Amino acid sequence: MFSIGLGLFLFQYVNNKDAGTDRMKEIAGWIQEGSRAFIKTEYKYLGIFVAVMTVALSAFLGVKIGITYVFGTVLSALAGVIGLEIAVKANVRTANAARKGGLSAAFPIAFRGGAVMGLMVVGLALAGISIVYWITGDPDILLGMSIGASTLTLFMKAGGGIFTKTADIAADLVGKIELGIPEDDPRNPAVIADNVGDNVGDCAGSGADLFDSYIAAIMAAMILGASSQIPYLVTLPLVFAGLGIIASIIGILLVRVGKEGADPGKSLNMGTYTTTLVFGVLTYAVTMYLGYDIKIWYANIAGLLAGIVIGMTSDYYTSINRSPAIKTAEASQTGAAISILTGFSYGLISCFPALLGIGIGAAISFSLYGVYGIGIAAVGMLSIAGIIIAGDAYGPIGDNAKGIAEMAELGDDIVDITDEIDAAGNTTKAITKGFAIGAAGLTALALLASFQEIVMSITGEPIVFNLMNPLVMMGIFIGMSIPVIFSAMIILGVSKNAFRMIEEIRRQFREIPGLIEGTGKPDYNSCINIATVGALQELLPLIVFSIVSTLVLGFVGGIHALGGYLSGAIFSGFFLAILMANAGGLWDNAKKYVESGNFGGKGSDAHKAAVIGDTVGDPFKDTAGPSLNTLVTVMSQIASLFAPLIVVYALLG
Amino acid sequence: MFSIGLGLFLFQYVNNKDAGTDRMKEIAGWIQEGSRAFIKTEYKYLGIFVAVMTVALSAFLGVKIGITYVFGTVLSALAGVIGLEIAVKANVRTANAARKGGLSAAFPIAFRGGAVMGLMVVGLALAGISIVYWITGDPDILLGMSIGASTLTLFMKAGGGIFTKTADIAADLVGKIELGIPEDDPRNPAVIADNVGDNVGDCAGSGADLFDSYIAAIMAAMILGASSQIPYLVTLPLVFAGLGIIASIIGILLVRVGKEGADPGKSLNMGTYTTTLVFGVLTYAVTMYLGYDIKIWYANIAGLLAGIVIGMTSDYYTSINRSPAIKTAEASQTGAAISILTGFSYGLISCFPALLGIGIGAAISFSLYGVYGIGIAAVGMLSIAGIIIAGDAYGPIGDNAKGIAEMAELGDDIVDITDEIDAAGNTTKAITKGFAIGAAGLTALALLASFQEIVMSITGEPIVFNLMNPLVMMGIFIGMSIPVIFSAMIILGVSKNAFRMIEEIRRQFREIPGLIEGTGKPDYNSCINIATVGALQELLPLIVFSIVSTLVLGFVGGIHALGGYLSGAIFSGFFLAILMANAGGLWDNAKKYVESGNFGGKGSDAHKAAVIGDTVGDPFKDTAGPSLNTLVTVMSQIASLFAPLIVVYALLG
Repeated sequence: MFSIGLGLFLFQYVNNKDAGTDRMKEIAGWIQEGSRAFIKTEYKYLGIFVAVMTVALSAFLGVKIGITYVFGTVLSALAGVIGLEIAVKANVRTANAARKGGLSAAFPIAFRGGAVMGLMVVGLALAGISIVYWITGDPDILLGMSIGASTLTLFMKAGGGIFTKTADIAADLVGKIELGIPEDDPRNPAVIADNVGDNVGDCAGSGADLFDSYIAAIMAAMILGASSQIPYLVTLPLVFAGLGIIASIIGILLVRVGKEGADPGKSLNMGTYTTTLVFGVLTYAVTMYLGYDIKIWYANIAGLLAGIVIGMTSDYYTSINRSPAIKTAEASQTGAAISILTGFSYGLISCFPALLGIGIGAAISFSLYGVYGIGIAAVGMLSIAGIIIAGDAYGPIGDNAKGIAEMAELGDDIVDITDEIDAAGNTTKAITKGFAIGAAGLTALALLASFQEIVMSITGEPIVFNLMNPLVMMGIFIGMSIPVIFSAMIILGVSKNAFRMIEEIRRQFREIPGLIEGTGKPDYNSCINIATVGALQELLPLIVFSIVSTLVLGFVGGIHALGGYLSGAIFSGFFLAILMANAGGLWDNAKKYVESGNFGGKGSDAHKAAVIGDTVGDPFKDTAGPSLNTLVTVMSQIASLFAPLIVVYALLG
Repeated sequence: MFSIGLGLFLFQYVNNKDAGTDRMKEIAGWIQEGSRAFIKTEYKYLGIFVAVMTVALSAFLGVKIGITYVFGTVLSALAGVIGLEIAVKANVRTANAARKGGLSAAFPIAFRGGAVMGLMVVGLALAGISIVYWITGDPDILLGMSIGASTLTLFMKAGGGIFTKTADIAADLVGKIELGIPEDDPRNPAVIADNVGDNVGDCAGSGADLFDSYIAAIMAAMILGASSQIPYLVTLPLVFAGLGIIASIIGILLVRVGKEGADPGKSLNMGTYTTTLVFGVLTYAVTMYLGYDIKIWYANIAGLLAGIVIGMTSDYYTSINRSPAIKTAEASQTGAAISILTGFSYGLISCFPALLGIGIGAAISFSLYGVYGIGIAAVGMLSIAGIIIAGDAYGPIGDNAKGIAEMAELGDDIVDITDEIDAAGNTTKAITKGFAIGAAGLTALALLASFQEIVMSITGEPIVFNLMNPLVMMGIFIGMSIPVIFSAMIILGVSKNAFRMIEEIRRQFREIPGLIEGTGKPDYNSCINIATVGALQELLPLIVFSIVSTLVLGFVGGIHALGGYLSGAIFSGFFLAILMANAGGLWDNAKKYVESGNFGGKGSDAHKAAVIGDTVGDPFKDTAGPSLNTLVTVMSQIASLFAPLIVVYALLG
């Protein structure tokens, strides 16, 4: 509650700042309008999906699940709307503050804009869980709410991901390549869609992503706690999550840039480290004070450390001034193919510390406190979600501020300041992205454990997922293929959707008189609409496929096959998520390294090669990669929800 | 024995054909000389490696294992040498027969050259196993021989893969791009290395690859049979393998092209299908006659069918006239990035039927006859290795024949005939490659089962690899990372090695007078030497790493962690092998589709984009992808060999 209150206060703080010149207000207005158009269209379609799901869940699993499902979707939708609203207000105000007061004035607005998102998301999530648990007293009912949040997140994250890359690719291909007009040129009908894409993909999408993992982790830990006969284990996750919010608030308030020339990236990271430390201290104090088992605290810390390892790995493998990015940039001199191979190879290598981190982290937390240990490790990682989301949402605000500064022609000095704010966002993003994937990986393991607990509580018998059981083995192989197909189809969806939008851009340049000369006004909204509807068209069959294949496998192969299937999806999903996020970030920064004057600089052959690598990486890191967590979460929860029916009606097993 | 005899007879048949003009003999001589130089250098280094391994194995596991280890390496080395020798004889004779008697004269020479390799490999393998088993009567001792074959194969396959792509990339970058001289131009010092690469990578490598899976599958099934108390289960794999050789011989003898204009590709596939059918009938008859359990025969057929599904999937996703390749070619019109993304996506999708096939195939064969069912399914798939290898080895012979025809300037008509022979090889290759990966996947599962049996026979207790056991889960995550790192490092190794060779080519053009004018003679062997030594330098640390990490994980984490680790390696290894083979083949054929006049044809922007895709795919399909099977096999066998020590001395578990 306090978190929501502070969130609203910071919202007012940002909203009261001046939005700048009329031209700036006009451009920001377009972005705001476009974002709202996206949300409106998306939520219209989602309304139908949610209605169908609610009816189906209510029919098969009871009205309680149906109601909590709707509640979960509403909360998730709310989190998305709030994130977008604050982002489109903060971006222009950041640009204006840079114009008036320089970096030290602009930075807090951008960051506090992100903080609104962070605080509101964790506040809403924790309040939602507490209310449902307070009313029902049954952690299993939380599954309905959690899957409501997850399905909506999958639409926002993956749909936003398709949207943003559609706009990006289409705007570049027609604008830069066919017509030779600069990036972020207001004459290009896709340019507002491109800016809207940053908001819906990165800002609303990432917020919803962590929102979903956050709820799922707390719920899984509560379910595991409920089966343990120790009463405090059920509420402990809520307590730890609450402490995480307090730690995040402290961290957020500490983030500031004192004087001109200070590095905003360092300041952001300081905030994250402070939060982690405060969280560790607070949970230790409460553990001692309330007499919790100290082993639970250790498991909690094991999760936190695993998250930091994965985040730092991502940072190393994607940073612009580290060897992988520089070597990839260097390889660009011998052409695009070698550049792509080099970046892809480093992406593969970057999976090693992450796989090691999650494997050892899970093993340690399990050996400390059984499956509940895994649950609490996931909660531990996600408890500091408040500041992680704040840092994540800061990125697109800075990016947009730069775009507005360029489009409104505020001059090079101002663009440079917004550029610095933007660059800091890129560094933070790598760390938070790694952190989010790691957290989702542990959450998925906790969900697998809670699936097992739910099955055991139904049958009353212990269940073992033996690797040498043919059904388990078959389940693993089939489960592995779901994230693989999902990422392939979603990448193909981006190309298909981009072609639709390219047609529309060409049509506008052909039919709107004076557009290329700058006297005609492009129809921004038709581009936004095409990207939105197209994204949903590509996505809907995939989401239905992943839900249906989970149910088919469960009802045909039975519980053992389903356990293997969920494990397989975790294995390939986690691996691909890390690979795509890191390789994509790496190619992006290799390109930036060349652009900053190395190996021939902008316009050289090396630059052309690096741009190809970056374009390959775009849907990796912004569309497919980040959707996989949520996909696996949805699959696990569908399995848990339908476990009672599957136990009874399965064909085999 | 009969197989070896027929192999020798066909060798004579090919050898007695005329090798053509002096110019042809000269060029073929260079290739032959280069191949021998490669083998000589490689085997010199391998001698040291084998000596160290033999001492280590003898010290820890007894002299018997040491001796069989050496025996296995010698057989594997022999198979490699024979494959190379026949390939470098058959290529020039194929080109000459094309010159004299057209397609119907040339085709049998190319195919029978491949058949020599196929028959010798399976003959040597089966004879070797039979001899060791006849002397010792202990299937466990076969592990020594099997791992001998596997380690050598890993060197030949991965080393050959690095070698061939090193030469390919270096020859193209300096020759085509820097100097503008055509492909296969004898002035280019790397051109012979490029042709040698086709032989050592595709021919010797693939032969050794199936040699290794073949031995491992038979051995694993024998070990599983030995633990079953039913005596005939131990020798049954040998019987089925023998029947497979007979079926292969029948299939090989049926492959011929009756008249001009017939399609050699169809003829090759007919041979494979006939062999499969004959094998099914023969094993059924023997099962009935000897009173074997009919369920074993069903398991055998399940394996065969899984192999065919995987092979046909590979065929569909890589064929030049199918939708994936055409769509990837079409995407090349919008640039290299979209082309790569499209091909990569189809590569991911192609994993679905393969994962489904191996998952369901393993489950069915297991439910028919337990772990032995999986073993016999693998044997079933590999029994027709004779004709599979023949088809595989046919490819580089045709490729080389075309190269010789071009270099010796035999005229367009002759080049067209060799081109047809070459093209048929590409189709067959996709099927056989998919088949080989599928067979290796089932073999790996059988090895995992035999690892479990070995552990149980040591401890006398049942062992369960429970997914929710933290050590197993940790093992899976760590095991998954080994093939991931291996493929990344090997791809990076290709680039590094290519740079060494580029320096050498530039040096020769700088220092050898008259080289570019065609009057000076390039030093082909120094290029071959650099590629060979460089390949081994890149590879040796990786192989040591994979062996050491298996031992470290086993001795630290214990048997449960090791079981998880091997499973994890199978999961990621199988997935990456399929992905890389199919995506690589797809990009290759998308390029060929553009080259045959579509979307702008040769020299267009689409072609340039498709070439980039093809270059990315080259180390995927020819270096990293095909090595992963063998890597997993080596890891599994090391684990089985050291199981007795790990059970006693492990730190955890």
